[in-house]
Amino acid sequence: MEQAFKRTQILTNHLLQSSPSSQTLSSNACLSYSPPELSESYAFDIKDMRKLIDRHNLEERDWLFGLMKQSKLFNPKVRGGKVFVSPDYNQSMEQQREMTLKRIEYLLEKGAFKGWLTEKGEDIEMRKFAGFEVCSIYDHSLFTKLGVHFFLWGGAIQFFGTKHHHDKWLRDTENYSIKGCFAMTELGHGSNVRGLETVTTYDSNTGEFVINTPCESAQKYWIGGASNHATHTVVFSQLHINGTNQGVHAFIVQIRDADGNICPNIRIVDCGHKIGLNGVDNGRIWFDNVRVPRENLLNSVADVSPDGKYLSSIENPDQRFAAFMAPLTVGRVNIAISSVYQSKVALATSIRYALTRRAFSLKQNDPEVLLLDYPSHQRRLFPLVAKTYAMSFAANYLKMLYVKRTPQSNKIIHIVSSSFKATFTWNNMQILQECREACGGQGLKTENRVGQLKGEYDVQSTFEGDNLILMQQVNKILDDWPRS
Amino acid sequence: MEQAFKRTQILTNHLLQSSPSSQTLSSNACLSYSPPELSESYAFDIKDMRKLIDRHNLEERDWLFGLMKQSKLFNPKVRGGKVFVSPDYNQSMEQQREMTLKRIEYLLEKGAFKGWLTEKGEDIEMRKFAGFEVCSIYDHSLFTKLGVHFFLWGGAIQFFGTKHHHDKWLRDTENYSIKGCFAMTELGHGSNVRGLETVTTYDSNTGEFVINTPCESAQKYWIGGASNHATHTVVFSQLHINGTNQGVHAFIVQIRDADGNICPNIRIVDCGHKIGLNGVDNGRIWFDNVRVPRENLLNSVADVSPDGKYLSSIENPDQRFAAFMAPLTVGRVNIAISSVYQSKVALATSIRYALTRRAFSLKQNDPEVLLLDYPSHQRRLFPLVAKTYAMSFAANYLKMLYVKRTPQSNKIIHIVSSSFKATFTWNNMQILQECREACGGQGLKTENRVGQLKGEYDVQSTFEGDNLILMQQVNKILDDWPRS
Repeated sequence: MEQAFKRTQILTNHLLQSSPSSQTLSSNACLSYSPPELSESYAFDIKDMRKLIDRHNLEERDWLFGLMKQSKLFNPKVRGGKVFVSPDYNQSMEQQREMTLKRIEYLLEKGAFKGWLTEKGEDIEMRKFAGFEVCSIYDHSLFTKLGVHFFLWGGAIQFFGTKHHHDKWLRDTENYSIKGCFAMTELGHGSNVRGLETVTTYDSNTGEFVINTPCESAQKYWIGGASNHATHTVVFSQLHINGTNQGVHAFIVQIRDADGNICPNIRIVDCGHKIGLNGVDNGRIWFDNVRVPRENLLNSVADVSPDGKYLSSIENPDQRFAAFMAPLTVGRVNIAISSVYQSKVALATSIRYALTRRAFSLKQNDPEVLLLDYPSHQRRLFPLVAKTYAMSFAANYLKMLYVKRTPQSNKIIHIVSSSFKATFTWNNMQILQECREACGGQGLKTENRVGQLKGEYDVQSTFEGDNLILMQQVNKILDDWPRS
Repeated sequence: MEQAFKRTQILTNHLLQSSPSSQTLSSNACLSYSPPELSESYAFDIKDMRKLIDRHNLEERDWLFGLMKQSKLFNPKVRGGKVFVSPDYNQSMEQQREMTLKRIEYLLEKGAFKGWLTEKGEDIEMRKFAGFEVCSIYDHSLFTKLGVHFFLWGGAIQFFGTKHHHDKWLRDTENYSIKGCFAMTELGHGSNVRGLETVTTYDSNTGEFVINTPCESAQKYWIGGASNHATHTVVFSQLHINGTNQGVHAFIVQIRDADGNICPNIRIVDCGHKIGLNGVDNGRIWFDNVRVPRENLLNSVADVSPDGKYLSSIENPDQRFAAFMAPLTVGRVNIAISSVYQSKVALATSIRYALTRRAFSLKQNDPEVLLLDYPSHQRRLFPLVAKTYAMSFAANYLKMLYVKRTPQSNKIIHIVSSSFKATFTWNNMQILQECREACGGQGLKTENRVGQLKGEYDVQSTFEGDNLILMQQVNKILDDWPRS
């Protein structure tokens, strides 16, 4: 309270002064830096606040943070009696990829992903969300490499596959003895999934599908995990049966053998250095008439009989495509949630900085004014704090909507997850930029994270649905919505 | 023209269609990529356009680009028959620093900086601007490391020093046998230069100044060149004479000997990895009562006599400070100009991309539509092109204003350079972000530069005057301006 009173006084002086006196030339007493929590008490219980915001699985979260703090793989550093963990970004992409893999293997060994694909129900889904959120606070590469493996590859097996796929792949995926990736995007087609150019035919003589990359624009592109570590991939491809294109379907293809050699008729090239997310080994893949058994079609929506007949319970190809894509929603839910956590990290850092850094005094020999006591600085940061609280609660709402989903709620989940994903990730980038500038040069120092997060999280407005296109979809659906 | 007509037709169809037909499921003909200049001619002469925009020293610019293309140090790569040069950013900061130094040494050896500090007049100033612009197109670290050495250290000697400083330091600076840095900013004081806490006293017994860092917040911070390569620095410090603080003055201090060892009573620590500009070795410096000869005071505005009397032709300390800071304007001019070049690189790249990348077709079996044929994409990029043309011409105006400066025009140059620096660098960051998103995933690939430039150039809104504070200064000056 005393602090708050002092600050009000400073601002009052600021406003009363018609013209600030000439700046003193005598040197001020040396500045001292003291984090605000050492001198101030809070009017509310911080634990209650955390419960309100993180909401669920608090113990699991702390356990996971604890695992990170205990391992040198996560670069623990002690500062002011607290342990902080953060990757070393002064590493080449090759080193960052190796570290990301080692971190996953360490967490796996400690049981952090137990049940993620073999258990079912609300409990495990909430546990997965919590674990995934903690990983996203640590590093976007860790989050994304896990996301591709568990949510995209694992999710494709779960949702596009049927019982024999579940039995064959889920346990090995959960224990990471196979490493999956998700080959949907091509050089020429990202948002327009229906326009994919990879072509698969069926050979009834051998009972195999033949997957082919017919041209350069059909090469799979940005496939996370493909360049170094993945052993298997889901391939999205047009399915041509007896000269008729039945649209995009998903197939399982092994791309590396147990020794890590790339399988025959498959070519993989690295996507190269990126402005962030360099711990993820994105690759480009070409298939030269690669043959896979008929069972490798993920057949929850459609199948091909041994003698080559196309079978689907959904006749309308538009509806078939929609049913097919629906399970990808969880990716957008995860992205929306994780983007809000980055805004929290940046705002917490820049507000703490503004409570220790001073600049300019109003009267000769007065102490210099804290950045946060400037109305301009308050107007910069406080609305972003309010916005981030709103996004945080909205993200929790989205999470519950997803976990309690029914066939009837699919459409509303699509709308909410798409619009939240686009809005939150755009907001996050604006918040990170504002916080970066509000921290001055310190915002550019990688160790302080605020600026680094910009490069790491910029991709969120593009992947799993370009924000602009998601918003156009939402707009179109709402336009067509029956007026009551 | 035919192309333009085709595009208009596509858009007309777009507008006439009441509801787009259901998306085709049959695979389109494979996409082909062809850069626009192969199929289209231009209604104007590109060379004339370049002359209008770059305006001066075109041959010197091409010569400098040519030097870069000829040396492996600049990573030349042939793509489509053209040579492109760009640093390898998949390197640690240690490697990037080494490469930046080697590039400077190579250009130096080829005579690229000949006359930069030993010649005078409009000609050499324009030549410097041109050379500096070319360097900024190549890499911000190259630009900044050169800028610190030639414009900040070299400029301090030229403008703050007098004849004996010029005679002693300028030639060795130009031939890089001494490497200078510029120790103004401290941990606790950046924008508020008058509040610097470093203290210098004069010892009339030995005829030396004694420079001291009295506390942690007084450590010099972000000093480009200090961490690895600089041999000398200008130190900005309060000057205490007989118990009176005469305000901030500048002193020359040697910080490394000929073998690269740090000099006694000086401590230097690295600033660490940054989100960009990792080819510049920023350091922190502490001075423990470091002694330098009386002649090391840069004495254009004020001096101290051998027996310790303070002498200045400008009695008012405010005016003295203003006279002292005026020569720093050129840094803001350089930053304003270079930021516009980054917008040009990003817009050229994203518009070329939008002229080759297609997404979605409007009717079954129609070719997919070029990104740039979408009104939404045009509205995204075209206003930014217009803005960048405006900034480009304005930057040329600022350059002429600076080169033809008189004592009377100092104030207007301060206003124009400050407001242009702030406006252009903020605009540049927005343009880079929009271009990054407009290129989708390709905007994140370091090789494509658009996204990478964001991290490299973000610092421009902070250094050489925080944009917000520059704008407040401009606002205040204009407010007080006599109304006619």
